[in-house]
Amino acid sequence: MTWTVSSRTLQKKDLWTQESLYALGNGYIGVRGNFEETYGSGLKEIRGTYLNAFHDVIDIPYGEKQYGFPSTQQKMVNVIDAQTIKLYFGEEREAFSISDGEILDYKRSLHLDQGYSSRKIHWRSPRGKEVNMYFERLVSFAHRELFTIFLRVEPVNFQGLVTIESTVNGDVYNYVNPDDPRVGAGHAKSLNVVKAEVNQQRGMVLCETKTSDLQVGCLTEHEIHPSSSRMEISSDEHSVSFTYECFLKQGEGMELVKKNIYVDTLRHGNDLLQAANEKMDTFKHLSFSDIKDAQIRYMEAFWKRSDVEIEGDSSLQEGIRFNLFHLLQAAGRDPYSNVGAKGLSGEGYEGHYFWDTEIYIVPVFLMTNPELAKQLLIYRYSILDDARNRARELGHKKGALYPWRTISGTECSSFFPAGTAQYHISADIAYSYIQYFHATKDIPFMIDYGAEVLFETARLWTDVGHYRNDGRFAIEDVTGPDEYTCIVNNNYYTNVMAKHNLYWASMIYHELKKWNQKAFDRLAGKLQLDDQEAEDWKNAADHMYLPYDEERDINPQDDTFLDKAIWDFAGTPEDHYPLLLHYHPLTLYRYQVCKQADTVLAHFLLEDEVKPETMKHSFDYYEKITTHDSSLSTCIFSIMAARLGDMDKAYRYFIETARLDLDNTKGNTKDGLHMANMGGTWMAIVFGFAGLRIKEDGLYLSPKIPEGWSRYSFHVQYQNSNMKITVTNDELKIELIEGSEVTLKLYGERYTIKRQTPFARSIKETV
Amino acid sequence: MTWTVSSRTLQKKDLWTQESLYALGNGYIGVRGNFEETYGSGLKEIRGTYLNAFHDVIDIPYGEKQYGFPSTQQKMVNVIDAQTIKLYFGEEREAFSISDGEILDYKRSLHLDQGYSSRKIHWRSPRGKEVNMYFERLVSFAHRELFTIFLRVEPVNFQGLVTIESTVNGDVYNYVNPDDPRVGAGHAKSLNVVKAEVNQQRGMVLCETKTSDLQVGCLTEHEIHPSSSRMEISSDEHSVSFTYECFLKQGEGMELVKKNIYVDTLRHGNDLLQAANEKMDTFKHLSFSDIKDAQIRYMEAFWKRSDVEIEGDSSLQEGIRFNLFHLLQAAGRDPYSNVGAKGLSGEGYEGHYFWDTEIYIVPVFLMTNPELAKQLLIYRYSILDDARNRARELGHKKGALYPWRTISGTECSSFFPAGTAQYHISADIAYSYIQYFHATKDIPFMIDYGAEVLFETARLWTDVGHYRNDGRFAIEDVTGPDEYTCIVNNNYYTNVMAKHNLYWASMIYHELKKWNQKAFDRLAGKLQLDDQEAEDWKNAADHMYLPYDEERDINPQDDTFLDKAIWDFAGTPEDHYPLLLHYHPLTLYRYQVCKQADTVLAHFLLEDEVKPETMKHSFDYYEKITTHDSSLSTCIFSIMAARLGDMDKAYRYFIETARLDLDNTKGNTKDGLHMANMGGTWMAIVFGFAGLRIKEDGLYLSPKIPEGWSRYSFHVQYQNSNMKITVTNDELKIELIEGSEVTLKLYGERYTIKRQTPFARSIKETV
Repeated sequence: MTWTVSSRTLQKKDLWTQESLYALGNGYIGVRGNFEETYGSGLKEIRGTYLNAFHDVIDIPYGEKQYGFPSTQQKMVNVIDAQTIKLYFGEEREAFSISDGEILDYKRSLHLDQGYSSRKIHWRSPRGKEVNMYFERLVSFAHRELFTIFLRVEPVNFQGLVTIESTVNGDVYNYVNPDDPRVGAGHAKSLNVVKAEVNQQRGMVLCETKTSDLQVGCLTEHEIHPSSSRMEISSDEHSVSFTYECFLKQGEGMELVKKNIYVDTLRHGNDLLQAANEKMDTFKHLSFSDIKDAQIRYMEAFWKRSDVEIEGDSSLQEGIRFNLFHLLQAAGRDPYSNVGAKGLSGEGYEGHYFWDTEIYIVPVFLMTNPELAKQLLIYRYSILDDARNRARELGHKKGALYPWRTISGTECSSFFPAGTAQYHISADIAYSYIQYFHATKDIPFMIDYGAEVLFETARLWTDVGHYRNDGRFAIEDVTGPDEYTCIVNNNYYTNVMAKHNLYWASMIYHELKKWNQKAFDRLAGKLQLDDQEAEDWKNAADHMYLPYDEERDINPQDDTFLDKAIWDFAGTPEDHYPLLLHYHPLTLYRYQVCKQADTVLAHFLLEDEVKPETMKHSFDYYEKITTHDSSLSTCIFSIMAARLGDMDKAYRYFIETARLDLDNTKGNTKDGLHMANMGGTWMAIVFGFAGLRIKEDGLYLSPKIPEGWSRYSFHVQYQNSNMKITVTNDELKIELIEGSEVTLKLYGERYTIKRQTPFARSIKETV
Repeated sequence: MTWTVSSRTLQKKDLWTQESLYALGNGYIGVRGNFEETYGSGLKEIRGTYLNAFHDVIDIPYGEKQYGFPSTQQKMVNVIDAQTIKLYFGEEREAFSISDGEILDYKRSLHLDQGYSSRKIHWRSPRGKEVNMYFERLVSFAHRELFTIFLRVEPVNFQGLVTIESTVNGDVYNYVNPDDPRVGAGHAKSLNVVKAEVNQQRGMVLCETKTSDLQVGCLTEHEIHPSSSRMEISSDEHSVSFTYECFLKQGEGMELVKKNIYVDTLRHGNDLLQAANEKMDTFKHLSFSDIKDAQIRYMEAFWKRSDVEIEGDSSLQEGIRFNLFHLLQAAGRDPYSNVGAKGLSGEGYEGHYFWDTEIYIVPVFLMTNPELAKQLLIYRYSILDDARNRARELGHKKGALYPWRTISGTECSSFFPAGTAQYHISADIAYSYIQYFHATKDIPFMIDYGAEVLFETARLWTDVGHYRNDGRFAIEDVTGPDEYTCIVNNNYYTNVMAKHNLYWASMIYHELKKWNQKAFDRLAGKLQLDDQEAEDWKNAADHMYLPYDEERDINPQDDTFLDKAIWDFAGTPEDHYPLLLHYHPLTLYRYQVCKQADTVLAHFLLEDEVKPETMKHSFDYYEKITTHDSSLSTCIFSIMAARLGDMDKAYRYFIETARLDLDNTKGNTKDGLHMANMGGTWMAIVFGFAGLRIKEDGLYLSPKIPEGWSRYSFHVQYQNSNMKITVTNDELKIELIEGSEVTLKLYGERYTIKRQTPFARSIKETV
């Protein structure tokens, strides 16, 4: 059943991990998989509902604040809880709780194919009443503001009163843990209730953030069947409660549909009550099954263009679909929002957007749902002014420096050595725009958004770097992706990505003139750009210093990386990983030890900058000293192992990647799902096993198949065409599903794929 | 009047700077020069009394806390205020205040020769009453716990009631400024009053710190003359008030002596009330003039061994005496205390002890009052266990890492790139022990304290460093003294100081066996030391990598310093200094720009490690790129300019050094006096102009005299002898004041100075 992730046991000790796994979302709303009835005491819970980009602003505390350290940061706020529904049975009002009575049967499922979750429980109360309960919940892709729950209750061995208490509660908190730098440290209470009120059958809770001056509202209404004998709707200072009572006979069912409309002042204007009511009016005629049908249609369309099939390992099949589903749920679809490091599934990294989006997530959408990729890039355009301001704060006369972590656009990193110093994020964003352009040839988008981002990021590099005496362009005092070595000179990754950024900025500068002189004039005027500056970019790219160690034939991670001693791996106990939780940054900086792929990642992203042998030697060198303490690492090692022909190793890394959250291998899935890793799973298959590359002159493919798999297939979108690529032990098959013919480079040779004549040939011949 | 610092005007706008200048202290108590009567509204004040090492513990907040970041820090607490005395005149009780009425005459003086301050005011009240007031205050060197105020009031043009209200107040706060990393950022209230009570004529206020579990008490009693017509002593929840009323005729004086005894649980046991009363009993028989006489005798003895005379510039003469006086006031005399960056004169850097002590202050005491130098070194021994623990936290298997800033011994720096990363502090402390040993040949001290410190710091270096492939011993990822370039490899200063540390640890290891085999066995057993480890130290010292640039013939500050671009000094506005308040650390790190002497300081401290030409070239190179944004910089450049023969330049740097606080040239003297700079002034004369060096084989001297000076003299203590050295344009004269004959190297030649035949020769011959 690789279309469904299921649990048949409660796993009481680890419910909060499951909350992340069973989280639902639509890029706007995210709801963790908490139980409607709550848990009972002693069980750990992070009860959460989030709206993408909906944040509060909190002060960042410092012991010694230096110039340019951000004084505030944004924080994703846990918003109004509409999950809660309590159930009581009999005149005694026995409350259903997993902490009391006995679970006779249990099954919880996440339906990846249809986009909802369900929970079925056969429960015996302490007094012996048996009840069947069935929950379904979905966050609608078709209706952005809608989160709905369906509930059916049925007495098994008794007849009597059944009471349902459904609440909407604005008295909510964020989760905090001051000792883990990866989750929020304070400021648990970010939301104040403005009002909770009842109007006819609807209840509305309206809240505002403490500092950021944003409001969020949740409007709720219920359908109940059969009509209840008693109904009561009431509000107190921070919540609205709906009570429904029915007398049920044995075997007779009672059904409830709870529809919740979330609105916020970022998207819905200032009169949230009206906005929510209008939305509710438009959904009013829709039954739960109508909503579910629309969801299923949406999912069908998604899977048609995105599914990856694996024959030979059903747990990996489950893993990849699970990951793709969660990516789809996480991706913001408006200029305010993006993909948080944990999507909308948890509060880890406080809902911030990192480079994860551009390097690990955009590629997935770009090849499957380019419209979503475009939305994510538009977000970066929308915060370009903040990035310009940040560059000024960092002393740069020109250009844009994107924040290492942010929601609304300003830097939220208080620890600059592994934050602001990661200048590469600006090149990563540029890279993503360039990849998007290669895959779509979307010139209007480049004119309206991409060019300005490329130009402003290129300017950053000419300002931050300088020509050394030997004529090479050097970039000092930045941090590369590997956070175990910070503030270094000439980080290979940063320099080669900056080179790419500079080169393409200069290319697009000249292209833009040809495409649309008026648009060019407007932009050049706005940015005070001239040919000389574009020439400077080209020159800096041409003279970019890329560290190279002749003796080892590798690219050193930075100027002095190879001078350091190698970390004492043999002397490091297993429980001292991740190292960052057991060693001071300085201790880590002092050794050759990598948290994650850095140079190896650069070799994947820009393979044409390096000889294959150097790639191989570098891979071998860095592999020995990389801990993969970052969840962004193993997928890249998988891709590069495949690239270098070691499919066994590629497969081993892939396995670590594909089920990282499902198996909670990092131990912190409770804080949310590792979105970049989820993208990385897809990348390991498509960029890794299948060797896909997106280049200026089109797509490159050179598929191989891991041992033990009999077949895998995936989809690729290129310009207006969608292809299904199937790889078996014997054959590579490429079918054009939609769009016009596509020319690809297959194993280095050029082929044109046409609708009538799908490409198919023996894989043995080609490899 | 170079023995007195005086003001004849109030300088109302900058009273808080004067509070620092007129601060009094005795190494235990420090009292800022606030006005007894307080200022009246609108005038900025930092009203403060401090006890050396008396601190609270506060949480350090972090946005993203990493492993090994200290979770708490100590903070010097503003303790009970005993300064306050209010005066009222006539039946109308007109309150004396500098904000009301008119100041007809005013003179405030700091008597450097006699160790007290005075304030004389002729004031006319708003209703026309004229009064003469005269205050003296002193913090006793003879009686550690005693701070006393003498007051005489005299009606000039009226007769009537004079009321004196003297208070002791425990409701006090620390000064905070969240935007300046050099002062405290929060936690203003660190002290709670336990009780305020009156017992017979004495009033006691007892307070405890919020967190550190320390108590402080202040017991006060008064003498009044003539007997007052009314006397009232009362207490409220946080203070004790003493009121004295006299009817005075015109020209008739009333005198008050306020004696305050400070005690704390670090030094005086748990029954502070009893301890304070016992102290007060012993002082009871002493009149103010007895106390003052003892102070004068103490000061005479101090100046006899420490005075520096300058003929030719009275403002510099004032400067050097002012500085020496404040150093004497600041230095802790017990194992709990040391010299704060601002001494006891203000709250800058929260009362923390830095390397300033060892490199800028110990040398002064070592050459004038070695017993004080010894006390400061004993403090470092007392926190050796904390330093061992810190080394473990930083991942070192052996050795001791001294905290960058501390009071009670644990690291208080929350910004590790310019804090904990400054590993050199451990070598600086070792250097100080070695200098002490060279100057005193105090073998028992080396056995009891020094050896263990040298061994444990040496161990740090063998653990932190490693042998590179070329066989050189390298030290990576540390920060040198220059905080504008952090976390670098092979900082020249650090490496050469570590080399010295390692070399002397190995030397003393072998000496210790010879001096006292039993002591050696005990220590080697305790530390699990063996010959092999001492051999390892020697080897690491012998193979220490010291960066050297052949082309420029300079020592690069670190491995990559010279690769960077030079800071755009021409494009930096004057008001952008100090750069640290106007540029992000990363911006600063990226350029060749120094906050302070780094390599140049190393060349001063260890001149025999480098050729004179390399010293010269380095000086010229670094001078161009050093901003002297640190107050620890110009004195070193002065010393080195003199060393290199450029007396004009040496003199210019000296001038900037000598009156830094008196002229408030850094603009932050309000936060306290720059203690290291004060030591630096003395060093610029003695190590700079006079060329003193303390080496294994004795003292080296090669005096020169700046143009414009006709004569200067200073004292030097060597082993048991005290010499007065006088330099004129014509002559160098060395007199043995105390002790037995001393052999010196004078201008490179060996001379023996005897009591009967002072050395005197024409300076022209010798130079």
